[in-house]
Amino acid sequence: MKYPVIAEHVKRYVSPKPKDIDLLQSFLNEVSMDKGTFLLQPGTHVRHEYFVVEGCLKAYYLDENGSSHIIQFAVEDWWIGDFDAYFNEIPSRLYIESIENSRLLSISYENLQILYEKSPVYERYFRLLITNAFISQRKRILSTLEKDTKARYLEFCTSYPNIENRVPNYDIANYLGVSPENLSRVRRSLKS
Amino acid sequence: MKYPVIAEHVKRYVSPKPKDIDLLQSFLNEVSMDKGTFLLQPGTHVRHEYFVVEGCLKAYYLDENGSSHIIQFAVEDWWIGDFDAYFNEIPSRLYIESIENSRLLSISYENLQILYEKSPVYERYFRLLITNAFISQRKRILSTLEKDTKARYLEFCTSYPNIENRVPNYDIANYLGVSPENLSRVRRSLKS
Repeated sequence: MKYPVIAEHVKRYVSPKPKDIDLLQSFLNEVSMDKGTFLLQPGTHVRHEYFVVEGCLKAYYLDENGSSHIIQFAVEDWWIGDFDAYFNEIPSRLYIESIENSRLLSISYENLQILYEKSPVYERYFRLLITNAFISQRKRILSTLEKDTKARYLEFCTSYPNIENRVPNYDIANYLGVSPENLSRVRRSLKS
Repeated sequence: MKYPVIAEHVKRYVSPKPKDIDLLQSFLNEVSMDKGTFLLQPGTHVRHEYFVVEGCLKAYYLDENGSSHIIQFAVEDWWIGDFDAYFNEIPSRLYIESIENSRLLSISYENLQILYEKSPVYERYFRLLITNAFISQRKRILSTLEKDTKARYLEFCTSYPNIENRVPNYDIANYLGVSPENLSRVRRSLKS
């Protein structure tokens, strides 16, 4: 098997038959990225979803004033892409940039549709993943409405285990919607 | 058929066989709610998801200071429930309250699992719905980060067509995270 890591991930959620795993494997392509390069930029026609084998990425967009807003990080075993652009057939508004040298597996949307048709076990796999993503995102909304910086940072560390030392402080602050100075103060207080 | 409205909704997303529709119908129960009553309150053990046949509801929670934060509205053809509480087997933190007299169809999570096993077409149906919900929620996060009240209100009117005259101004303001006075001003300016 070329890519055992993604097979393991699938088996954590559903019970694929060997032929289901073989079909998925046949649709995957390997993508290597150097730190600081882009997987996606605004205006791109979105054609793939990506599974992270190794590395760390961030998805963000720039507002009218040129300020960036991070909406997702992805590390090992996460999927990343731009659903909105794909489903609604509009150009992407997102940047997806690697924070570390990264290795990804890509699947085209055309092949994903074939996968759903031929191996319905992946309907369930992606239904469960997107449900988890929906729940995390809802927690983030609640968190923004309610919590102070410390509580939000601790929740971030739970949602993204071990990422807090891999992502720059200013990127985490941006994601949480707080100032980098404020976040640094909170992180120091947690260490002491 | 007892509940044609939900069958029509399913057919908008997937191609069920008559037996798939029959199975779903056999699992549904009708729920009537008077305006101002609760479908769910914090601490409840969540056992059902609900499809709105007629009416309007809001899902919200109270923070430590007793302030309410609305996270979702539901009108005809929307599903509402508390995924987080169900999937993670924790008590609900949400209130779900009817804003109008409402008629809903409920399905228990146990029956939903049977539905997935016996009629995999519903794996796809719910995958597509949750993907749409994920995209709307992401837009809401972007919107909160970026846009002013007017742009947010117009986006709200697009996401929830025709709901703007059914929900009190203060509930919409709460959902958008702006003051009711600010929203009233914006709405007046749009009418003139």
